[in-house]
Amino acid sequence: MKKIAVFTSGGDAPGMNACIRAVVRTALYHGIEVVGIVRGYKGMIEGSFTPLNSQSVSNIIQRGGTMLKSARCDEFRSKEWRQIAYDKVIDAGIEGMVAIGGNGTFTGADIFLKEFDIPTIGCPGTIDNDLYGTDYTIGFDTAVNTALDAIDKIRDTADSHDRVFFVEVMGRDAGYIAIQSGIGGGAELVMVPENPDSFEGVIETLRYGRENKKSSAIVVVAEGEELGNANVIAGKAKEALPHMDIRVTNLGHIQRGGAPTALDRILASRMGMAAVEALLQGRKSEMIGVINDEIVHTPFDDAIHKKKPLNKELIKMVNILSI
Amino acid sequence: MKKIAVFTSGGDAPGMNACIRAVVRTALYHGIEVVGIVRGYKGMIEGSFTPLNSQSVSNIIQRGGTMLKSARCDEFRSKEWRQIAYDKVIDAGIEGMVAIGGNGTFTGADIFLKEFDIPTIGCPGTIDNDLYGTDYTIGFDTAVNTALDAIDKIRDTADSHDRVFFVEVMGRDAGYIAIQSGIGGGAELVMVPENPDSFEGVIETLRYGRENKKSSAIVVVAEGEELGNANVIAGKAKEALPHMDIRVTNLGHIQRGGAPTALDRILASRMGMAAVEALLQGRKSEMIGVINDEIVHTPFDDAIHKKKPLNKELIKMVNILSI
Amino acid sequence: MKKIAVFTSGGDAPGMNACIRAVVRTALYHGIEVVGIVRGYKGMIEGSFTPLNSQSVSNIIQRGGTMLKSARCDEFRSKEWRQIAYDKVIDAGIEGMVAIGGNGTFTGADIFLKEFDIPTIGCPGTIDNDLYGTDYTIGFDTAVNTALDAIDKIRDTADSHDRVFFVEVMGRDAGYIAIQSGIGGGAELVMVPENPDSFEGVIETLRYGRENKKSSAIVVVAEGEELGNANVIAGKAKEALPHMDIRVTNLGHIQRGGAPTALDRILASRMGMAAVEALLQGRKSEMIGVINDEIVHTPFDDAIHKKKPLNKELIKMVNILSI
Amino acid sequence: MKKIAVFTSGGDAPGMNACIRAVVRTALYHGIEVVGIVRGYKGMIEGSFTPLNSQSVSNIIQRGGTMLKSARCDEFRSKEWRQIAYDKVIDAGIEGMVAIGGNGTFTGADIFLKEFDIPTIGCPGTIDNDLYGTDYTIGFDTAVNTALDAIDKIRDTADSHDRVFFVEVMGRDAGYIAIQSGIGGGAELVMVPENPDSFEGVIETLRYGRENKKSSAIVVVAEGEELGNANVIAGKAKEALPHMDIRVTNLGHIQRGGAPTALDRILASRMGMAAVEALLQGRKSEMIGVINDEIVHTPFDDAIHKKKPLNKELIKMVNILSI
Repeated sequence: MKKIAVFTSGGDAPGMNACIRAVVRTALYHGIEVVGIVRGYKGMIEGSFTPLNSQSVSNIIQRGGTMLKSARCDEFRSKEWRQIAYDKVIDAGIEGMVAIGGNGTFTGADIFLKEFDIPTIGCPGTIDNDLYGTDYTIGFDTAVNTALDAIDKIRDTADSHDRVFFVEVMGRDAGYIAIQSGIGGGAELVMVPENPDSFEGVIETLRYGRENKKSSAIVVVAEGEELGNANVIAGKAKEALPHMDIRVTNLGHIQRGGAPTALDRILASRMGMAAVEALLQGRKSEMIGVINDEIVHTPFDDAIHKKKPLNKELIKMVNILSI
Repeated sequence: MKKIAVFTSGGDAPGMNACIRAVVRTALYHGIEVVGIVRGYKGMIEGSFTPLNSQSVSNIIQRGGTMLKSARCDEFRSKEWRQIAYDKVIDAGIEGMVAIGGNGTFTGADIFLKEFDIPTIGCPGTIDNDLYGTDYTIGFDTAVNTALDAIDKIRDTADSHDRVFFVEVMGRDAGYIAIQSGIGGGAELVMVPENPDSFEGVIETLRYGRENKKSSAIVVVAEGEELGNANVIAGKAKEALPHMDIRVTNLGHIQRGGAPTALDRILASRMGMAAVEALLQGRKSEMIGVINDEIVHTPFDDAIHKKKPLNKELIKMVNILSI
Repeated sequence: MKKIAVFTSGGDAPGMNACIRAVVRTALYHGIEVVGIVRGYKGMIEGSFTPLNSQSVSNIIQRGGTMLKSARCDEFRSKEWRQIAYDKVIDAGIEGMVAIGGNGTFTGADIFLKEFDIPTIGCPGTIDNDLYGTDYTIGFDTAVNTALDAIDKIRDTADSHDRVFFVEVMGRDAGYIAIQSGIGGGAELVMVPENPDSFEGVIETLRYGRENKKSSAIVVVAEGEELGNANVIAGKAKEALPHMDIRVTNLGHIQRGGAPTALDRILASRMGMAAVEALLQGRKSEMIGVINDEIVHTPFDDAIHKKKPLNKELIKMVNILSI
Repeated sequence: MKKIAVFTSGGDAPGMNACIRAVVRTALYHGIEVVGIVRGYKGMIEGSFTPLNSQSVSNIIQRGGTMLKSARCDEFRSKEWRQIAYDKVIDAGIEGMVAIGGNGTFTGADIFLKEFDIPTIGCPGTIDNDLYGTDYTIGFDTAVNTALDAIDKIRDTADSHDRVFFVEVMGRDAGYIAIQSGIGGGAELVMVPENPDSFEGVIETLRYGRENKKSSAIVVVAEGEELGNANVIAGKAKEALPHMDIRVTNLGHIQRGGAPTALDRILASRMGMAAVEALLQGRKSEMIGVINDEIVHTPFDDAIHKKKPLNKELIKMVNILSI
């Protein structure tokens, strides 16, 4: 293998740059050339390739976002456009690829690989932590700490005004960001899609807290919560508890950016290195993961379709620790 | 004067605790006793007074929120309840008061003072910076930096995805937080109530940027913007610019909390000291301010009713610096 | 078991308060009373016990340091004083204890327990991460991120001035903080006591970097590095490389404080809960750990004397990623 | 004027990039070309000029350090080398310059200007805030907040262990960083070169605090303190107060880096704009400053030689607020 490509796709996540840096430098260390594909599959179709050397990735380990950019690419769903992408890839002399992204990214890579047999290895880059085959995804720890920092700030004002705050956090269909930022933020309640919640339970918890001298409360609501979004749930709570001062805040896109935490930088670096080493070992169609501090390889098919369970012990913890 | 009271009222702001600390320690330095009134005017009516000594305010200079809490108090609008408050104040031996808060706080203090002649001095504590008689209010600099940190994070993701973000920030009827966080965040456009904006202007700015190779853009929208909130404006922008990927985020209550910045801690400390010294000099019915780095005293009446103008030069800056 | 005590001892670490909170609330959940011992073994001898309820530990999960304080206690090394401590503990009705600290803390607890058979469970609280029986200790992740944030700032100035910086980080005899902050910070070299370093190697790395267009460099030196401290090593480097602009900075005690990260808060919460549950199960003389995301119990004797190995793969990573 | 140059020189300061961005975009707005001189006077001699357009300065407003780098340049002290620099400047078609830096930078510019009459305007970029002609220098507010954040962390551990910490901060001959971070950090004592300190006073303050139930203390020592550095002063305090647990930490170079605060970004942007406008108005040999929120122009000669006084009221504040 003489030349590989690296690209990012799907929602950006802090640590993607650290991963790109690791891919580039590990490849160079093994005497392999690297090109970056700008804007993922869109750039592949357009032939937006840029050579990357050691200086190209200097001073980016601490930057949020992705220097290779990301973009939606509906064209890549059709065979004709994938053929065009393949031609561009072959013309550029690319013999293997590292794809950094989430579910959609790996689905695209898997199809492309089955059609054209370009060896591709994936690195899980998404703040949602919803990928099977790894304990943590790149960006998750940073997103949790960003959400936590916001919850700490909100608690200052909740406490000063004896208020109840419903805080909505990201995570798509998964409750990982919610449960971790909720426990870390000392939330009175965390609502996640993996656990059945009831509206009565919310009211009960808030009432119980008030009766037990808790003047304020924080309820963390995951984006994918089955009872509805934070506004809907808070609206019902206001009806049932008219004497409480209830507010809502949606943390939104701040959770995607910022300098990555140490954990995310190290994880991203290890994964980027392992991806290049996997290509060198002749592996393909696999996602790199870290489970119990060891590098593991999971077939794209499993990474995409298998469900990573949420640790239910954590939900129990919220109840005990907020008494 | 042998005993004074201090209280916070209205929306909480980072630095209020630093101000309380300064009031307490300056009073003790001059041999005066201090009591804290918990929950502002509500606590005054209820007689929620707590003695404060040097240790009471130890290790709070860095905390957001207010240790004396704040609360709405509709009762205080009626004479009967104010009479009750007055009786409680007199019973407690309180001879002067320091009120930390905003417009509403000073309005209450002014009426109370006119009726019962309890000397009261105000310290401007609000993140909105909308008070006449001071260059900065306590909490403003922290709120701006919190908003700025959020905008920096949003730019990471805006830039990675070539997106336009409408970011709504607090400030009630004033555009101070918007203009400062917008300039600091390198926003392409800042929309504030003090300046007439047009929907066409928004579209024009976004189009111009895209034509001039700006792949992403940030528009900061003040809470009080006359064209509508960020959702409304972004909705119209989406219609007019269907090819742009336009998102909205409302920073919400994170802007109220967090450890105060150096500027806010020093400002709050100076103001708290000056408030006690003003009481000792026999002053009353005035708000402490800092203008051109000097302590100034402004009658409550002016602080409440006069309008502080926004520096229009700053709006011009946004246009030039975002080209 | 009707009443337990909790205390912190040894160097403080961010997350100790989160652990105290979890101990208190888990005990209350199980109907057990809790007292806090102030200043560790010193407070035990002096009988400085304070009852803790749910409100006592409210709003502390985000605070650095330890609300129960910590202190050296040489008296506890003698049997007579331990007898006094025991009498105080029995008088207070304490039937079990949770000790939060490091090596020295557990050594004291182990001796005390063997003499007087008070069931004690330990929670590993130290920024150094040098305890056998757990993947992470409470405070480590926060200390790493604090060091990393400092290294990011130093890189700004290193890069602007084409300088070489030797940055000394904490960790006593262990290189964990150094290796993680070094990789995360994109250091050109990390020097830890677990790995033999040579002065020639340092010079070689700096020369190689300069020849390969690296204008600046960061060398992270662990406190326990066998070649000497950062000043000593930098001094020799200056002699050998007189044309380089070489600076030294010792991060010092900032690494001990600050709001704990999400990881530390959750880890501390889990460990505090597990410690109380272990006492309820009749366990004693064990340290709680989390290995591969599962709670494990390690006899004090092993936790104290066995050596946790540093992942050598991480040292190799530094070399590859800094090319 | 058709083409101007911008460069940074002296110690780097957060906000220099924001200033460069403002210079570039304001010049472009007025139809003027801009080149960046890399590494200040060194780059001028070497002809290291790089054209800057709007994109060149995109996404740098939030970055610490300086993208144009800085370097020592002893050659510039001799006429021959300045002649060479002048020839390079003329060859490049440069008709005016903006110099961002401190005392040394302006001294160089002043001499150069007197010899060759190239119009030059200075922007004060230094964390020390020691320049006459402006209330704040670029980078000062960020450095103060960085020092403050460190002091907050140190207080966590000081408080947990009942310790006294001597914290040394930067500032060269000026005590601005010390006094502001000291007041903001709630220090018990601040030692600055502008105010005579005595060793007895230090001991007295620490003793008084301990007698008045202060279990811990923070003493902030300015780099230029006339009684010696923090180590020296702490050493004497240890002798006089052997029962206190006294520690020292030197914050070092972390004070130079990091993302600039809102205040620094706005200040730098205003100054950069004003510098270009001054060149257009035919001004030269002046430093831009902001006094009482207004742009002012100070001749280099005054900026270099006049002394900006430290507000002594702030020193008095420390005594009162730490009782």
